[in-house]
Amino acid sequence: MKSIAILGFGVVGCGVAEVIEMNKERIAKRLGEELRVKKILDIHEFPDSPFANLVTTEKEEVFDDPEISIVVETIGGARIAYEYTKQALSVGKTVVTSNKELVSTHGVELMKIAHDHNCNYIFEASVGGGIPIIRPLHRCLAANKIERIVGIVNGTTNYILTQMAENGSDFETALKEAQAKGYAENNPSADVDGIDAQRKIAILSTIALDGAYVDPTKLFTVGITSITTKDMEYAKEMNASIKLLAVFENGDEGSFVYVAPHLVSKEHPLAVANDVFNAIMVTGNALGDAMFYGQGAGKLATASAVVGDIMDAAEHQSRNAHIAEWYESETPVLKPIEEHRISVLLRLPDSVSDDQIEKAFPEISCQPCVYEAEGEKAVILGKDGDLNEAKLAIGLENFENVLNVIRIF
Amino acid sequence: MKSIAILGFGVVGCGVAEVIEMNKERIAKRLGEELRVKKILDIHEFPDSPFANLVTTEKEEVFDDPEISIVVETIGGARIAYEYTKQALSVGKTVVTSNKELVSTHGVELMKIAHDHNCNYIFEASVGGGIPIIRPLHRCLAANKIERIVGIVNGTTNYILTQMAENGSDFETALKEAQAKGYAENNPSADVDGIDAQRKIAILSTIALDGAYVDPTKLFTVGITSITTKDMEYAKEMNASIKLLAVFENGDEGSFVYVAPHLVSKEHPLAVANDVFNAIMVTGNALGDAMFYGQGAGKLATASAVVGDIMDAAEHQSRNAHIAEWYESETPVLKPIEEHRISVLLRLPDSVSDDQIEKAFPEISCQPCVYEAEGEKAVILGKDGDLNEAKLAIGLENFENVLNVIRIF
Repeated sequence: MKSIAILGFGVVGCGVAEVIEMNKERIAKRLGEELRVKKILDIHEFPDSPFANLVTTEKEEVFDDPEISIVVETIGGARIAYEYTKQALSVGKTVVTSNKELVSTHGVELMKIAHDHNCNYIFEASVGGGIPIIRPLHRCLAANKIERIVGIVNGTTNYILTQMAENGSDFETALKEAQAKGYAENNPSADVDGIDAQRKIAILSTIALDGAYVDPTKLFTVGITSITTKDMEYAKEMNASIKLLAVFENGDEGSFVYVAPHLVSKEHPLAVANDVFNAIMVTGNALGDAMFYGQGAGKLATASAVVGDIMDAAEHQSRNAHIAEWYESETPVLKPIEEHRISVLLRLPDSVSDDQIEKAFPEISCQPCVYEAEGEKAVILGKDGDLNEAKLAIGLENFENVLNVIRIF
Repeated sequence: MKSIAILGFGVVGCGVAEVIEMNKERIAKRLGEELRVKKILDIHEFPDSPFANLVTTEKEEVFDDPEISIVVETIGGARIAYEYTKQALSVGKTVVTSNKELVSTHGVELMKIAHDHNCNYIFEASVGGGIPIIRPLHRCLAANKIERIVGIVNGTTNYILTQMAENGSDFETALKEAQAKGYAENNPSADVDGIDAQRKIAILSTIALDGAYVDPTKLFTVGITSITTKDMEYAKEMNASIKLLAVFENGDEGSFVYVAPHLVSKEHPLAVANDVFNAIMVTGNALGDAMFYGQGAGKLATASAVVGDIMDAAEHQSRNAHIAEWYESETPVLKPIEEHRISVLLRLPDSVSDDQIEKAFPEISCQPCVYEAEGEKAVILGKDGDLNEAKLAIGLENFENVLNVIRIF
């Protein structure tokens, strides 16, 4: 019998208990022993839960129990979760989590503690929910230099953008609908401002860089709050979708890692991900492109990845080798986003003349868009010129009223 | 230094040596030691290859060398590859392969030998080329009952079908083009008759069943040779693509496992896989749907998966736990395909009356297709009725000239 504890009995924590119960025979057959939830640590009571009798508010019942060798952290956030994770790892208990905030913020330290105490800190579920991505990236693509990762990694924003595209609703309306359906929080900032995506791409980038830590708070990040119904009109006419992309581009002297809305051709495989679905495309220098697609969130889907991690930990107890250990790199990991080149759609009032545009961006190829909304002028600034964020900004200063600028993937 | 040998220096074998050379620094950093190809066993000489001096025709130089702990089998087929794999495993050398024929035919025996000699037989590259699928299925989805796998797993047939759909070419023309481009063999039978797909779905099904062996030769298999330009017309009008699908459907009393062309809605995520690309959708009872997409073949892509396996083997030498061991199940693993229910498009000459159809399939719901080619009658037989292959066959006997029957996914 293998005993585990769950810290935090919210949606995912509860899902973990459910998945273990639902598939207990299969899990036992696979592990050669039963997997049981021995304790659930939470400050709330859950009288209606079939697991009510396991709930405790005393953390010592988890940390001091030598039978519990694996701890699931589904508290979320980086405060209590951080303290408890440190405490668990410090007494040699492997911690499995879906907490992208904690992993992306304190991963270096937590993996070091795990290493020093011959246990593991593992987090397949922190990116892509139930979609296998971290282990495939680290293990199956081990023989590749990872050249690029482009992902739709936030289901909430993808749902909102899909609603805007399909129903013509504006951002606020689509957000309200997402909230009504439980896809968005009351305070939606972490999703719509791109913070969640930022954390996820920071985790994937660090893994792609064999552990050289990418700090999420350092990443250039644009959310979706400025996307309008007009932008959606352009997307439609360009046979594209607007997607919030989290991007990692590996370069010889540092990588570009950022989050921003992009126009993505409907012909591109990533465009397959609509509604709350996620899709992550990984490019390896030997493999070429591979894409991972599925439900990026949801109780049982995310829990399925957590329980997969628990089983891996149970099968390989005290083998400290799930992923390359993270470290603070001495050389800069990130390239300044100002140097990043990408085509953009630039929407301007039609009072602007071609001449003005040419003068504003003298070194950038500039072509008309296939579509221009009434009263507007739309141009596509090429990436082959000397386009960079700084110059674009300078160029944009020459215009009184830029309607929007959207990157083109 | 970790030394390996490559058996068979064809496309994939050569790719393996290239990937190891191309990414040697990254691989060394990851493994903590250099990975080197010490010997290449082949009956040919390769005077122009940078690896020419490693080539030998003497198998003892591989099998008797204690330094070589991992052997790559890229010979293909199930004769010499079989003998050499047995020999390597019998002296405790882990064997890594992309050989789906050998894995699907002799996997049970070879894994047993590996187990008895404390080494491994691993084959991530045998399905999906470079796309991670076997490890994610076994490891990341460990907490799931795998309910279904539906895959486009053969790039050659997918290329041919894509050409037929996009250019209106007939099967023979598209096949010739595939051959000219090197996507199809001179003898294309293994691809176009579905044998390759049959082997791959047998491997995936066995893994999904935790090792209960699925014999590929027992699988109901239809290739793509009977797909016509007329069928493509129907697909287009139905907003669908014709795809050769390899299917695993897990049931309580056995599973349906088969290969056949299907009409797949263009709205379905699987439809994203065109040309030589593969896509495999896996449904877990906790996870829901997840899809893996990428290049299913190709020298470096496939080699990248082989080298990933080599690295995994090098890091976990003598841990015999890559996948659950395969075994011959005492209870039947496969359900008779005659019991399988699925909607089909039935194309008949327009001389057939509605009345005749109704009499032929009295218990099956039957509705007209959105499109009928000139001189034809097209109906969709529903899956909710008592449709099964046998009845369908009986029904079909009532008609002189069935133009085609295609499953609808």
